[in-house]
Amino acid sequence: MGLNQTKIQQVFIGIDGGGSKCRASLYSHEEGILGTGIAGRANPLHGLAHTFESILASTELALKDAGMSSCDTHELVAGVGLAGVNVPHLYQEIATWGHPFKQMFVTTDLHTACIGAHNGGEGAVIITGTGSCGYAHVGEQSLSLGGHGFALGDKGSGAWLGLRAAEQALLALDGFATQTLLSERLLAHFAATDAMGIVEHLAGRSSSHYARLARLVLQCAQEGDAVARAIVEEGAAYISEMALRLFEIDPPRFSMIGGLAEPLLPWLAEEVVARLAPTLAPPEIGAVYFATQEFNKLA
Amino acid sequence: MGLNQTKIQQVFIGIDGGGSKCRASLYSHEEGILGTGIAGRANPLHGLAHTFESILASTELALKDAGMSSCDTHELVAGVGLAGVNVPHLYQEIATWGHPFKQMFVTTDLHTACIGAHNGGEGAVIITGTGSCGYAHVGEQSLSLGGHGFALGDKGSGAWLGLRAAEQALLALDGFATQTLLSERLLAHFAATDAMGIVEHLAGRSSSHYARLARLVLQCAQEGDAVARAIVEEGAAYISEMALRLFEIDPPRFSMIGGLAEPLLPWLAEEVVARLAPTLAPPEIGAVYFATQEFNKLA
Repeated sequence: MGLNQTKIQQVFIGIDGGGSKCRASLYSHEEGILGTGIAGRANPLHGLAHTFESILASTELALKDAGMSSCDTHELVAGVGLAGVNVPHLYQEIATWGHPFKQMFVTTDLHTACIGAHNGGEGAVIITGTGSCGYAHVGEQSLSLGGHGFALGDKGSGAWLGLRAAEQALLALDGFATQTLLSERLLAHFAATDAMGIVEHLAGRSSSHYARLARLVLQCAQEGDAVARAIVEEGAAYISEMALRLFEIDPPRFSMIGGLAEPLLPWLAEEVVARLAPTLAPPEIGAVYFATQEFNKLA
Repeated sequence: MGLNQTKIQQVFIGIDGGGSKCRASLYSHEEGILGTGIAGRANPLHGLAHTFESILASTELALKDAGMSSCDTHELVAGVGLAGVNVPHLYQEIATWGHPFKQMFVTTDLHTACIGAHNGGEGAVIITGTGSCGYAHVGEQSLSLGGHGFALGDKGSGAWLGLRAAEQALLALDGFATQTLLSERLLAHFAATDAMGIVEHLAGRSSSHYARLARLVLQCAQEGDAVARAIVEEGAAYISEMALRLFEIDPPRFSMIGGLAEPLLPWLAEEVVARLAPTLAPPEIGAVYFATQEFNKLA
């Protein structure tokens, strides 16, 4: 479709920036999803230039996917969910970015994820993927928890599980603790024979590198490894506590999002699992809903 | 002095690469230290290009300080102590670097620190500055412990204390733990009013950024803050255990090096403190001794 029609039917682009990927969906309320695009990481906390590049690249791919031209970019109304926009100096720089859209509405990635999960309605979400965080909005109230990033926070996330496991394995391999299944599996994972062989693969690496170890840690915990169990239990206890804190403002729905949401379930408190409802739409569609709401307010 | 004389008296340059600084000392065994230079970080685990740049920059500054020309570089015999040279692929790249020296001998920064601390003799050292690690050499035996880098290891180091303190403060500010003096002081340190104000200053930052919080953590611990105490005690217990492990190969001398060595003393095991001897020469002079030994072996 060309953009001649958009004088009548506005096309939105919903963008979900993340620590490893940036997803974009072109959407019209008449026709639904027109096209999608995925580009590299878009986390302002780890670089604004890269974030802007990924937003533009994912938009370009979504337009191409929809059979539209990149010239159509300036006709789009964009909704963008990003980490770190609650950091004043980052918000300032994002707000003053010379973006190519007709209009751009920015909010936290948590907010758009939550709007998406509940199909535009109120509720609470916990995201446990590479990082971890929680968000709830009910009426005028909203609550945001955790999400301070690797290695400062993000307890219970994939990167946190991986980092804690690597730390413990290195202490064991250095003789400061007993070696267990966990240190064995980590050595095997990296085809390493000693601590340095692990360090070589992890030193100075990004959170997504550590997050790749999460499944291995959960597997060891499941097989009864005491060190892995202690790590997983500590992480899961934090996620459960986060959920209970979110429930305090009485969200009508609760969902969990991210690659670790399902594997963590057996470790979470029963009362948390009992309230779990399926995610209705992905964060980039949440970003479309958000942009639509904001756009209609101005109309 | 010019380098005409070096046909007779070889001039050495000792280089100590570190996570925050690279120090170089020009040295002749007849005249002692001829000049010194300090450049930026030189840690191969966090970038080889930067490491090579800092080695060259510190050399240039030391030559200038000695009133020598940079043309003299190719007459120097260099001893270089670097982190990460026990990582095979890094060692390979450092060994094949087209360096400008007459000859270059590379070893770990721990090895050169240890040689320096004991004025060329045998012994053990623990380095607790931005990072932490231990090393001992006695006869044919050598033992290297820890030093796996931020945020993977370096327990008890400045960066580790800072990271753990920031993590705990953020958990407290998010309501997952009780706020104490530590969270108050961290807020004040960053002139922040909430968790995001701390995150803004630390997210994605290097180990040296976190290490700047170490004094504040130690101060809180000294004033009895339970959270800070637990962190400092855990870090110090690791350093004490590291010392006891090094003592197992009977080093004749033991020294501690780095900005955190002295402030950590009150928290270390008595038997460790009892064996502490002063550092006799800095790591860059240790690098000179190392280069001299290796150069004489070839002569």
